[in-house]
Amino acid sequence: MSNNSEIEVFCPGTIANVSCGFDVMGLALDGIGDRMLIRKSNQKGISITKIEGQNLPLETQKNVAGVAGLKLLEHLNSDQGFEIEIYKNIKAGSGIGSSAASSAGAVWGINFLLGEPLSRKELIEFAMEGERLASGVAHADNVAPALLGGFTLVRSYEPLDVISLPHPSELYATVIHPQIEVKTADSRRILKQNITMKQAITQWGNVGGLVAGLFTEDYDLISRSLEDVIVEPIRSILIPEFDRIKSSSKEVGALGCGISGSGPSVFALSKGEATAKAVAEQMKNIYIPLGIDFEIHISKINTEGVKQL
Amino acid sequence: MSNNSEIEVFCPGTIANVSCGFDVMGLALDGIGDRMLIRKSNQKGISITKIEGQNLPLETQKNVAGVAGLKLLEHLNSDQGFEIEIYKNIKAGSGIGSSAASSAGAVWGINFLLGEPLSRKELIEFAMEGERLASGVAHADNVAPALLGGFTLVRSYEPLDVISLPHPSELYATVIHPQIEVKTADSRRILKQNITMKQAITQWGNVGGLVAGLFTEDYDLISRSLEDVIVEPIRSILIPEFDRIKSSSKEVGALGCGISGSGPSVFALSKGEATAKAVAEQMKNIYIPLGIDFEIHISKINTEGVKQL
Repeated sequence: MSNNSEIEVFCPGTIANVSCGFDVMGLALDGIGDRMLIRKSNQKGISITKIEGQNLPLETQKNVAGVAGLKLLEHLNSDQGFEIEIYKNIKAGSGIGSSAASSAGAVWGINFLLGEPLSRKELIEFAMEGERLASGVAHADNVAPALLGGFTLVRSYEPLDVISLPHPSELYATVIHPQIEVKTADSRRILKQNITMKQAITQWGNVGGLVAGLFTEDYDLISRSLEDVIVEPIRSILIPEFDRIKSSSKEVGALGCGISGSGPSVFALSKGEATAKAVAEQMKNIYIPLGIDFEIHISKINTEGVKQL
Repeated sequence: MSNNSEIEVFCPGTIANVSCGFDVMGLALDGIGDRMLIRKSNQKGISITKIEGQNLPLETQKNVAGVAGLKLLEHLNSDQGFEIEIYKNIKAGSGIGSSAASSAGAVWGINFLLGEPLSRKELIEFAMEGERLASGVAHADNVAPALLGGFTLVRSYEPLDVISLPHPSELYATVIHPQIEVKTADSRRILKQNITMKQAITQWGNVGGLVAGLFTEDYDLISRSLEDVIVEPIRSILIPEFDRIKSSSKEVGALGCGISGSGPSVFALSKGEATAKAVAEQMKNIYIPLGIDFEIHISKINTEGVKQL
């Protein structure tokens, strides 16, 4: 049992889908994340007492951290109250798991202060309730890596079955977030409900290859597998200069490049920090002339997930 | 360089697809396979001098071993001639890689007698030419495990990219071959060309789970991942009592059960030989009252692939 009454939490950004792994794969970042303060309170329930960095609702029932936290407390039958302060660095709508960071951070912090009655894996389903509020779908491909760190595979939802995958130690992500709005709902709506068997076979060949490459630390296999023949060709039209970002990143050595979550952020994976930085330069050189504001994050893969600061 | 002028070869049966891994996964068997004798001859080209066990064409250009072997000799620019005797145990049309065994055995044996100019992996594309003759499609999901042993993933065809996967040592296959005819072409024709995105996501989640389970030797994860929501529901209608075979096999402990290749053989994977035998009993008990002839094979996973006898 923890005797702490307050904890400061780092809530990592995450990349969902990871090219071929649409709706099943995700990974956690180190270089970009939110900060939360969570403390026990005498008042039952959850109060969001402060949000900095983003304009988000303070009402518990409208806040992903509030909703996820309440679901956890309900499950635990806990009358303990909590106050939460949220310091957002991850912009809402960025495609790098802003809502997931808050949801995962809330349930992890509350669980910690209650003496860790649940495992990180068990917390996933409660964090998913935050995602339900944010996007209408209780998906796990951001909250799973946010809670577990590293790469995760959501094998199934019924029942929920999340697998932690290893990754080679020199793997870095470069993420560019063009400051344009792409709503997750829109980004979902343009997808086709039916796909060809041929495309699907290509995709699951790549999913198998990516998982095998992560286990064998085979950067080249990871690179060959980081292709999405189904979603990227459709969604990438919403992202300015996606094709150039992708080809330029690969020219300087990126293993692969794709849309982070439902966009508009674009990620590249590279072996080594030097390549990840070179990729960032390429991305900048393409976006600066466009006059679109952007942020770039260079990050090692986060192996721990949400953690105490 | 080998000085041998003759080699006796074991050509393993193989299970393609392995439930979720339609068109990409395959595994090699130990308990069922063909025997081939391959010897150098003074006459350029390839002569199939004997076939026992199955009624198959002796004409080189109409025989999968002949065609695969010729493609290899052509690639190697070799004037060396070969005679091949084929002793079939794997029945044509069984769904456990009869043509693949002959194609793989031929190219491996010829390559061996020529001093192994090519690796096993490099031989795959020549063995695929036998598959092209047999089924019209130069697929690799049987010839890859036949040549490499173990589990294989055909990540891509263009370019050909075959990945060897590990497997836990206590993994056994039980295969029942009902002696009914299901033509590969028919079995392909009834498949849908379009599938839903939802089904596809389920399938590639399972492919990722199966690959992860093989690496981590997690029998339970392998079991949860051995589901095919796309092809099996359609093809299984061609196989008498498929659903009962599947449920009965799992009742006695099989990790999973599915259609071997395009059928009609049905396979189950189990942890340990005792369970694999119990599964065989269940299968027998269902088929005997039906009055359909059948063969049952119980086999460890073959880790070597085609080998010298």
